[in-house]
Amino acid sequence: MDTAESLTRLYLDAIENGLKRAVEHSDSFESTRLHEMLAYHMGWMDHKRKSSLAGKRIRPLLVLLVCSAAGGDWNNALPGATAVELIHNFSLIHDDIEDHSSLRRGRPTVWKKWGVPQAINTGDAMFALAHLEAIRLADTVNVQVGLQAVEILQKTCLHLTQGQFLDLSYETRSDLTLDDYWPMVEGKTAALISASTEIGALAALKNQPLSELYRRFGLLLGLAFQIQDDYLGIWGDSCLTGKSSQSDLVTGKLTLPVIYALSKSAQFADRWNAGQICGSDVQDVIKLLETEGVADFTRGQASRLLNEALMVLQKAEPKGIAQEALESLAMNLVNRQT
Amino acid sequence: MDTAESLTRLYLDAIENGLKRAVEHSDSFESTRLHEMLAYHMGWMDHKRKSSLAGKRIRPLLVLLVCSAAGGDWNNALPGATAVELIHNFSLIHDDIEDHSSLRRGRPTVWKKWGVPQAINTGDAMFALAHLEAIRLADTVNVQVGLQAVEILQKTCLHLTQGQFLDLSYETRSDLTLDDYWPMVEGKTAALISASTEIGALAALKNQPLSELYRRFGLLLGLAFQIQDDYLGIWGDSCLTGKSSQSDLVTGKLTLPVIYALSKSAQFADRWNAGQICGSDVQDVIKLLETEGVADFTRGQASRLLNEALMVLQKAEPKGIAQEALESLAMNLVNRQT
Repeated sequence: MDTAESLTRLYLDAIENGLKRAVEHSDSFESTRLHEMLAYHMGWMDHKRKSSLAGKRIRPLLVLLVCSAAGGDWNNALPGATAVELIHNFSLIHDDIEDHSSLRRGRPTVWKKWGVPQAINTGDAMFALAHLEAIRLADTVNVQVGLQAVEILQKTCLHLTQGQFLDLSYETRSDLTLDDYWPMVEGKTAALISASTEIGALAALKNQPLSELYRRFGLLLGLAFQIQDDYLGIWGDSCLTGKSSQSDLVTGKLTLPVIYALSKSAQFADRWNAGQICGSDVQDVIKLLETEGVADFTRGQASRLLNEALMVLQKAEPKGIAQEALESLAMNLVNRQT
Repeated sequence: MDTAESLTRLYLDAIENGLKRAVEHSDSFESTRLHEMLAYHMGWMDHKRKSSLAGKRIRPLLVLLVCSAAGGDWNNALPGATAVELIHNFSLIHDDIEDHSSLRRGRPTVWKKWGVPQAINTGDAMFALAHLEAIRLADTVNVQVGLQAVEILQKTCLHLTQGQFLDLSYETRSDLTLDDYWPMVEGKTAALISASTEIGALAALKNQPLSELYRRFGLLLGLAFQIQDDYLGIWGDSCLTGKSSQSDLVTGKLTLPVIYALSKSAQFADRWNAGQICGSDVQDVIKLLETEGVADFTRGQASRLLNEALMVLQKAEPKGIAQEALESLAMNLVNRQT
């Protein structure tokens, strides 16, 4: 294995095969169509545009890269990798219903295609499949790590729902501050990314102290990642993201730039409070945000957290090509344009 | 401990305390309202009518009674008991959305009170809490039993979603036979009841052969229980059940009596296929079912399965007052009128 890229490609192939095998568990004589909905969401049904549909598999990649960088055999960590990706996808299926999102990666969402009842249930099936994967770490690593990983994932899922609860509650509030923002994104995004790096480390190290550093690396990276997501929701080319053709400014989403800008009580805040922003106003409102220093603040927060993440990673003394791949993945995640 | 009733009361108190402690995990400074929604669903918020709101806690009771009857210390099985009840309640929260049910135990359902997005998320939180409980069996019994219980529960959850998938799919089908009925109710109802008896046995016996008998006892009991539920959906006093004031005949639910009656292609089938049954038609349609022998068939199936369940239980050689309590619980479940 020569380069960081070829290592990443190898891992991505193993992840995709692991995911397909895991999702197969849902397939039985009677429930072929349940399996079909799961496979559709995972991006495996539309052969024409395959690569763009499957998602970036960032979380499982982090599991395997951390495991290698911490000196472990990535093969042993594979059930942890598939588990975190399935949990991510369970939460996407449910979030799409909760946020009333019709499109994901340029295709109709599960609820849009099969209705809300089947979509809720398909998300639940994905949740169960995720945990069936995690428990396999008891075989590939050892019983203690298997139990620890299962517990980390369950706590993470609880944390996810707490974050999502806050996000849904904020929709009706107009008095948010940055203090409200951090617990929401820690739950919604950073918790699962930190679980990914922690589980990867546990699979290699089977003990706590260094795993804690990797967990913290994941947490900081997850926060930086979410802030970049918030940034792209306003400044990104929405066609590139494929998520929606609407700016977060139009949907009224309370992201870091918006919450920060509202706290300044300047022109943007007046415009925001005056009523919904239409598509034709977006460019003007973006200019207001830029004038008020909001774009710089947002990018600054992402950079600060990325740097902190990389410093914590360094303390964990990662090794080999995996270290290189890990650092470049982290930087790409926070500097990505899609 | 003198009688089966006093044993049951003792267990029910321990279950309720265990459930409250488990649901506390969702409570934090930011997510008090998430905890509130969970507690509301569990029946703990309305102090006036407390006893009728909490549900019958049948599944956790089965865990503890089986554990005792199999010679174990029921205290050790408590995390398994709370886990199965939380899973049951997670599925109720989601089922209520999927089936568009506004009332449960005479009160508005979670989605009706807080909206679909928060209700989906609250169900997910309950799901995570359930598994955090199950894993505690690694401490109260041993690591091997903890892992086994977690795996049983995850497979059960997958089975639940397969059953629910079938139920939702059947809504649009008119060609169902009894062969379609059994896999649906095995997933929707019997899987979790058989997981309850299996986990109770594992906590006591820590090995497989007798646990398998208890698992099978639960499976047969679960099927009998569901058939009685189907029976009560037509012949029960719907005010007593508190679920809904509408007969299953009005909502068009495809239960055992309906599927059986349709297979006879007689007068009931003609009436069913002619269009929705209104409240004023219900008594006439029930008479058709009785004339066609459907009530007798349904009660007969429930009795047959209950008897099979009790025979399997006998083979497991349960002991003490718990045996008595277990048999009387099984009989009450299948002969209940609410």
